[in-house]
Amino acid sequence: MSTGFFGDIAQIKYEGADSTNPMAFQHYNADEVIMGKTMAEHLRFAVAYWHSFAWEGGDPFGGQTFVRPWHPQDDMGRAKMKADVAFEMFDILNAPYFCWHDADIRPEQGNFADNLNTLNEITDYIGEKMDAVGTKLLWGTANMFSHRRWMGGASTNPDPDVFAFAAATVKSCMDATHKLGGENYVLWGGREGYETLLNTDMGSELDHMGRFLNMVVDYKHKIGFKGAILVEPKPQEPSKHQYDYDAATCIGFLRKYGLENEVKLNLEQGHAILAGHSFEHEIAVAASEGMLGSIDMNRNDYQSGWDTDQFPNNVPEVALAYYHILKAGGLNSGGTNFDAKVRRQSIDAEDLIASHIGGMDVCARGLKAAAAMLEDGGLEEALKARYAGWESAEAKGMLESDLASITDRVLNEGINPEPKSGRQEILENYVNRFV
Amino acid sequence: MSTGFFGDIAQIKYEGADSTNPMAFQHYNADEVIMGKTMAEHLRFAVAYWHSFAWEGGDPFGGQTFVRPWHPQDDMGRAKMKADVAFEMFDILNAPYFCWHDADIRPEQGNFADNLNTLNEITDYIGEKMDAVGTKLLWGTANMFSHRRWMGGASTNPDPDVFAFAAATVKSCMDATHKLGGENYVLWGGREGYETLLNTDMGSELDHMGRFLNMVVDYKHKIGFKGAILVEPKPQEPSKHQYDYDAATCIGFLRKYGLENEVKLNLEQGHAILAGHSFEHEIAVAASEGMLGSIDMNRNDYQSGWDTDQFPNNVPEVALAYYHILKAGGLNSGGTNFDAKVRRQSIDAEDLIASHIGGMDVCARGLKAAAAMLEDGGLEEALKARYAGWESAEAKGMLESDLASITDRVLNEGINPEPKSGRQEILENYVNRFV
Amino acid sequence: MSTGFFGDIAQIKYEGADSTNPMAFQHYNADEVIMGKTMAEHLRFAVAYWHSFAWEGGDPFGGQTFVRPWHPQDDMGRAKMKADVAFEMFDILNAPYFCWHDADIRPEQGNFADNLNTLNEITDYIGEKMDAVGTKLLWGTANMFSHRRWMGGASTNPDPDVFAFAAATVKSCMDATHKLGGENYVLWGGREGYETLLNTDMGSELDHMGRFLNMVVDYKHKIGFKGAILVEPKPQEPSKHQYDYDAATCIGFLRKYGLENEVKLNLEQGHAILAGHSFEHEIAVAASEGMLGSIDMNRNDYQSGWDTDQFPNNVPEVALAYYHILKAGGLNSGGTNFDAKVRRQSIDAEDLIASHIGGMDVCARGLKAAAAMLEDGGLEEALKARYAGWESAEAKGMLESDLASITDRVLNEGINPEPKSGRQEILENYVNRFV
Amino acid sequence: MSTGFFGDIAQIKYEGADSTNPMAFQHYNADEVIMGKTMAEHLRFAVAYWHSFAWEGGDPFGGQTFVRPWHPQDDMGRAKMKADVAFEMFDILNAPYFCWHDADIRPEQGNFADNLNTLNEITDYIGEKMDAVGTKLLWGTANMFSHRRWMGGASTNPDPDVFAFAAATVKSCMDATHKLGGENYVLWGGREGYETLLNTDMGSELDHMGRFLNMVVDYKHKIGFKGAILVEPKPQEPSKHQYDYDAATCIGFLRKYGLENEVKLNLEQGHAILAGHSFEHEIAVAASEGMLGSIDMNRNDYQSGWDTDQFPNNVPEVALAYYHILKAGGLNSGGTNFDAKVRRQSIDAEDLIASHIGGMDVCARGLKAAAAMLEDGGLEEALKARYAGWESAEAKGMLESDLASITDRVLNEGINPEPKSGRQEILENYVNRFV
Repeated sequence: MSTGFFGDIAQIKYEGADSTNPMAFQHYNADEVIMGKTMAEHLRFAVAYWHSFAWEGGDPFGGQTFVRPWHPQDDMGRAKMKADVAFEMFDILNAPYFCWHDADIRPEQGNFADNLNTLNEITDYIGEKMDAVGTKLLWGTANMFSHRRWMGGASTNPDPDVFAFAAATVKSCMDATHKLGGENYVLWGGREGYETLLNTDMGSELDHMGRFLNMVVDYKHKIGFKGAILVEPKPQEPSKHQYDYDAATCIGFLRKYGLENEVKLNLEQGHAILAGHSFEHEIAVAASEGMLGSIDMNRNDYQSGWDTDQFPNNVPEVALAYYHILKAGGLNSGGTNFDAKVRRQSIDAEDLIASHIGGMDVCARGLKAAAAMLEDGGLEEALKARYAGWESAEAKGMLESDLASITDRVLNEGINPEPKSGRQEILENYVNRFV
Repeated sequence: MSTGFFGDIAQIKYEGADSTNPMAFQHYNADEVIMGKTMAEHLRFAVAYWHSFAWEGGDPFGGQTFVRPWHPQDDMGRAKMKADVAFEMFDILNAPYFCWHDADIRPEQGNFADNLNTLNEITDYIGEKMDAVGTKLLWGTANMFSHRRWMGGASTNPDPDVFAFAAATVKSCMDATHKLGGENYVLWGGREGYETLLNTDMGSELDHMGRFLNMVVDYKHKIGFKGAILVEPKPQEPSKHQYDYDAATCIGFLRKYGLENEVKLNLEQGHAILAGHSFEHEIAVAASEGMLGSIDMNRNDYQSGWDTDQFPNNVPEVALAYYHILKAGGLNSGGTNFDAKVRRQSIDAEDLIASHIGGMDVCARGLKAAAAMLEDGGLEEALKARYAGWESAEAKGMLESDLASITDRVLNEGINPEPKSGRQEILENYVNRFV
Repeated sequence: MSTGFFGDIAQIKYEGADSTNPMAFQHYNADEVIMGKTMAEHLRFAVAYWHSFAWEGGDPFGGQTFVRPWHPQDDMGRAKMKADVAFEMFDILNAPYFCWHDADIRPEQGNFADNLNTLNEITDYIGEKMDAVGTKLLWGTANMFSHRRWMGGASTNPDPDVFAFAAATVKSCMDATHKLGGENYVLWGGREGYETLLNTDMGSELDHMGRFLNMVVDYKHKIGFKGAILVEPKPQEPSKHQYDYDAATCIGFLRKYGLENEVKLNLEQGHAILAGHSFEHEIAVAASEGMLGSIDMNRNDYQSGWDTDQFPNNVPEVALAYYHILKAGGLNSGGTNFDAKVRRQSIDAEDLIASHIGGMDVCARGLKAAAAMLEDGGLEEALKARYAGWESAEAKGMLESDLASITDRVLNEGINPEPKSGRQEILENYVNRFV
Repeated sequence: MSTGFFGDIAQIKYEGADSTNPMAFQHYNADEVIMGKTMAEHLRFAVAYWHSFAWEGGDPFGGQTFVRPWHPQDDMGRAKMKADVAFEMFDILNAPYFCWHDADIRPEQGNFADNLNTLNEITDYIGEKMDAVGTKLLWGTANMFSHRRWMGGASTNPDPDVFAFAAATVKSCMDATHKLGGENYVLWGGREGYETLLNTDMGSELDHMGRFLNMVVDYKHKIGFKGAILVEPKPQEPSKHQYDYDAATCIGFLRKYGLENEVKLNLEQGHAILAGHSFEHEIAVAASEGMLGSIDMNRNDYQSGWDTDQFPNNVPEVALAYYHILKAGGLNSGGTNFDAKVRRQSIDAEDLIASHIGGMDVCARGLKAAAAMLEDGGLEEALKARYAGWESAEAKGMLESDLASITDRVLNEGINPEPKSGRQEILENYVNRFV
């Protein structure tokens, strides 16, 4: 009982690297075992409901370019048709997971009670489809940035009624996520920040946000939700400044509000770039604190100053991201969510499918390269050699010592270190053997 | 017994806003009282020894442009001549403070023992000049980024001998700062970061940096140094990534290593810009955590992607910085250090003086505007009005509540918040009345 | 017969610098004479119809925040109501000019014939209002970027039918501009560029754009339109790359297609920033080629990578822009168009008025400072002195000479130039005397 | 008679993709034929003398890190030793070409006559080495940015004596390039621009630069130099703004001064990035005007705002660059110059060799992928299909038509174009089949 939206596009199969079929995987072989796990288990791909089904192709200078049978999106009947098409796509791609905001899946009703009712109705409907198709929910989240009520923030809003509305909204989305067996719950604070410091009490807003997140964690435990609570760093856009600026800022915030053992990070390539970081940097920061939760996989155009959310296509970059993920022990309850949208000129159903095929193949190539590097061990060996000095008892003792004692040693032993090559290019060449 | 370097430039006097004398202050009137303190007490200007006396005018594509009698800077005699000229300038400007790195004031000797000796000798010499001229030391610091021994980091170096050399160097600089009555001690980690993650063990490097800073704090207490220990955020340059990325990152780091009550921040306009922030943002972040220590006043060119360290000249921007400083209670033991250098084409002695006059006048105008805004109270009033909802018992109670109770209230009371104008342009117009 | 939209806001009057009335001009005194012309004649302020009346407050992550009586904008009756409100605002501000895109003033009909009819109807209506209120049309332009038909470009579209539709659309807008006595006609090519080079034939697209612009110029002459044809540089957004990247690129394009004497530039502060330039740079480039046409006055947030189109509020920056404009002989048929929008949280009618008051006052202060600098002459004098060497006959002769002869002279005369100070800080201090 | 600098590193051989020998080529097989030419003929690799032999490892915050036997570089004897080492490296790499600035190869003497003499002496010496080793000169150029005499510009200097010194210097470098059989002559204007508009007469400086370049072209013809004259775009650094901002700006400049048929562009990846462009964009711009001359191959760190000049290592990016080069007919007299330097921590001789091996292999992979795409033809086919509408007589006729006639046709035929997918992701997936 297909909707017909995808025409005669059949389920996408793995055909191997030599295939020239644009509607086949050349690299993503779900069951292929890499370092003891299947690719599907490593990558845990999810499709983002919003980009593929809720976004209509608009940008700041232009309106809708997509013409879809579920438009306009203000009606529960068409919301169900949208779900039908979405699950057809999940099936075509054999995507193991998907993710949603409440506002992606139900029509906005303008008040909380009706939003709650429609959310319950549509998640019941979606639950049936999940069972039928076999797609699971990687995470749910609340859209607290699109409707005008959120324009001045959600938990950080100057109006306590908005805080209340936000609390109720997040509760409803956590409940729905739990109902659907979601494996994580995400918070992205696109309006938690400011447009101008002139009208902003930053300290108080941060306290409110910290308190809010503590309530979320409490509620998770109360309802027995076992998934991870994740916050998602982004430095700006839509706000001039967002409090969850980058991984390091989020971690500092979590520690300040006593949440460092309760909350992890959902990291995105595009957001990393906007914050002036590489994606692997953000992953390494989170991993070094044990706070790597999940990833939003996409790419930002390096020449654009906004969040372009394109599908990943640079294998060497993706390989470094997965290298740091594998080193950190993998994604655990997290996954690889394609927080990526086709360009607004890519108006055909075929574009939706092809873009995900390309993204999955790029991730598969990146994963395989990362695994090969880890198995070869060349980088780890080089790292070990570079820091070998710190293995000595003397070096370890120094860390337990003090400035005066160390100074004595420097003077007495005439310590005068000689620089050693950092061998950056040699390591870069090494990586290029694998990508 | 003038060195003659500044020719016939006499001590700079305040002549008032109508003066057209380029060698007079038009706005900085040291003894003028603003909000109960003199401008000198508020601003606490310091001259940076490095930019004005140690930098020779080079940039990545060009060598020395300045021809100074104290060049080449490899000799103790010329180091003293340099100090003579520096104190002449402090006297001409009537600058209350100055700041140094060890490497600015003594010639590099290539080993620690000799560096220590020359540091002791030159700081004795400088101490005498301080007494004679009346200039005080705002802060001292160790240059642990220029010599090749630091190329792979100081406290985060893979080689523990470099850590040791760094510990001894910082001890020597803290001792010298203490000897000269310095009011703060600063650490800027220009090489504490990485060029490539491929050769970097970030977690271990951060642990070493955290341990190092704890040693610094311990030593401060041991020697009875009463000044503040300050770290200085900068996101990058010279390194691709520096661990002290911005205020929020530094604060997270300090909290992780238990230093949030021991260390404050030295914030710089140029570094804020490089990190993607406004200067007032960084000040507001530090102030909201009670960690505002001191400022490095300069400006970065908005179209250049590196640290241009120009003298401040935009009064509206500087006014907002001082507004947040005054709101936070002022600079306390910190000050306004001109971490600014004349352009490399500004090769005359007159340029050195004029640039500082301009910078001091811009800061004076900014301070006066900030004080006027605070005294008028319009911004504070608007802020209070915007957040007034949070004053209610119900709102405060909500913060002690939980998601489920709040949801009940939203449903029962039909809470449906109506957006209120953020009034940004009206507030911006208000500010423009004062600058 | 007021619409009541602006409540009891009366016409804005000049009250002088000491006024604290937020609904008065403190600096813009329309009739005050500066350098022989009134401020009104110098500044030639225009209100942008799109930002204040057509934009509904959306951004890439959020929908409409403004609730206006003329919404939804799909109906001719409400289009007239919108015009009524717009002209009330022009009257309140005593704004001498306004500007429009066709799509701002008439509802989109989905085909050319009906768009033409509604454009004719609404411009008749607007013409009557112009007569009644006294507001004139600075320029008209065609919106060839919002509707989905333009998604792949207008004159550069791969589909020649879109080129045809664009040609007809521009003709209709030129006719309407001419009918309303518009003083210029502008073209901004927001979709004339590319999203990816992979699907783009750049050389052919540029040829089409060059041919298109030649047709525009021909048509101007044919209908006897005496105003200037202006193109507006912007480097990117909405497209990844726009062909009219910046002033220098546009000028090169115009010269290539033989239009350097027919077309001038409409320069915008925000677009300059996005292209990596200061606003005064773009003005200086256009002025040095005699191609300065008009300005879109706004400001971009320096920490945001997209076009924020905020009202100008930094007087020192605005002063430098007007300094270069005055040096170039003023704006002539161009004007100061506020291509600026209130923030999406500024939802009150009062915000619309106050933002324009602030912008007009900032421009007035900038103009007065610029004029004072020119009248004082200090900068021009310094410039003359710096280049004085080129006044000599020998220097002029050298420019008529050749490498070999010059080399002989260098060798024979032992020419060995000694650097002279660029005096940048001294000049910056000088400017600060006036702003 | 080796200098011993490279120890026991032997000539680098091609060992194939499976080799794990870091001192072998895995992809660059000089004699392998691709699209009818050998890889050596396509790529025409050149080593940049300055980065590998003249740069000492300094950066804005640190001094020399490299310790080389030819330091300090102020003596003709050591200049010859440096040349000996350089040619050993060219031989080890079997590099077909190298490039120099005068200041890289001879010690600065402080006056023109002595600079000329030492240049003549060292180029005689180098000429003998070229004959012995078989390395050819891709291009020579004059360093008119490092010495303090150039601080205010070379041909654009306010002092005509600097213009004269520049003219003589360029003549001397053109003579030397001609003597050594150089195949191009390059001009990069690192100081041709400004630090502040306040002290700059842009129009006059551009006229001087245009006149200067005409003199260069005249001299080329006079001496019978058959190589191309190339200018090299860069937007900024060291100057705040450089006149040769990017490809489009340079082309506009060349056209203004009548040089569009005489001068071509030398394009650099890093400079493209600094100007806000991708490398392939700059190549496509130059190619669309027939002005592609040569390339400076390197990469800029996307998170750093200055020119990092790293060795290329991202094959997908490099492949797109060569794709546009091959489409444009190849590099002709130009080449692939590694304008890239090892990181300042890469202090070993081995790093110098390995970095070039990596760069050459990355370029070889990029070239092979580009050639495969062209041979497959998929992109060209897609492009042809997308623009097919323009092949019709009607479409071609429209370009010869005018706005009024086209409007008639739109109205009469009811032209109402329907958007077609741009297929960006499908094309990106296609590219990923080859890289």
